[in-house]
Amino acid sequence: MKHLKHDILLMALILLSSFNLVAQNYSGEQKDIDAILKNIENFSQYYMNADYQMLAACYSLDGKIFPNNAQIIEGRDAIEKRWTLPQGVEILKHQVTPIEIKVINEYAYDYGIYEGETLRANGNTITWKGKYVIVWKKVDGEWKIYLDIWNDIKA
Amino acid sequence: MKHLKHDILLMALILLSSFNLVAQNYSGEQKDIDAILKNIENFSQYYMNADYQMLAACYSLDGKIFPNNAQIIEGRDAIEKRWTLPQGVEILKHQVTPIEIKVINEYAYDYGIYEGETLRANGNTITWKGKYVIVWKKVDGEWKIYLDIWNDIKA
Repeated sequence: MKHLKHDILLMALILLSSFNLVAQNYSGEQKDIDAILKNIENFSQYYMNADYQMLAACYSLDGKIFPNNAQIIEGRDAIEKRWTLPQGVEILKHQVTPIEIKVINEYAYDYGIYEGETLRANGNTITWKGKYVIVWKKVDGEWKIYLDIWNDIKA
Repeated sequence: MKHLKHDILLMALILLSSFNLVAQNYSGEQKDIDAILKNIENFSQYYMNADYQMLAACYSLDGKIFPNNAQIIEGRDAIEKRWTLPQGVEILKHQVTPIEIKVINEYAYDYGIYEGETLRANGNTITWKGKYVIVWKKVDGEWKIYLDIWNDIKA
């Protein structure tokens, strides 16, 4: 009996955690949602590849990033410069989990969680986690990041 | 001649600074822009008045705030609790300067700068400045803050 209770509890926990995995809330045409999801995935890949030009091209020409303790940084050149890491520093992991995406005409907003791991020049690694809000803009049929703001979630 | 040059320089500076003041970019119906601007102003007033219930009511029922070093905080009760300052701490100044507001159907985004001054319990005051992105949602004809994220601008 105790064993059965344990099994039911375990099953409930598994169900709950899988529910959690699909608790994302996407609204808009499927092709737009798919394009935005693909862009989010590409962004992480470009960052891990240190492909800063492709990273900057994820933003609209008038895109803006809002890093903590900095001014608003605007335009692809300035954004590329800001994302570029010093020699010897590598992004080992960058993963974004959107919680909600909503497309409204030629704009969309998206918020969620990001997490990652950085290899420092001294050989140490650090992990980090945060939350973000993005405003997307459709430019010539392509979804680009217009506003990108984030901050930390304390470990 | 030197004096004239000085006058021209001064005039140019005055023109530039007044240009700066009107460099805000608002797009949408005037009544929506006006309502959002009024809400932004009210928000600051409620915060300075320590009227946390009215402050929380600036958000939609499913509103979310993204303070640095915290999880995403959702719902009016949790938001009110988060904004409530300890006894003896006062907001002497809270001022928001929107740079861009764009209304898209029943949603809007807005980004800009905020700054303020806090009186601490020990009698000291501190000033602070930051940048923010807000996603607004029209609920029963009223503009409410749905997503509210910000971080510091280093002094």
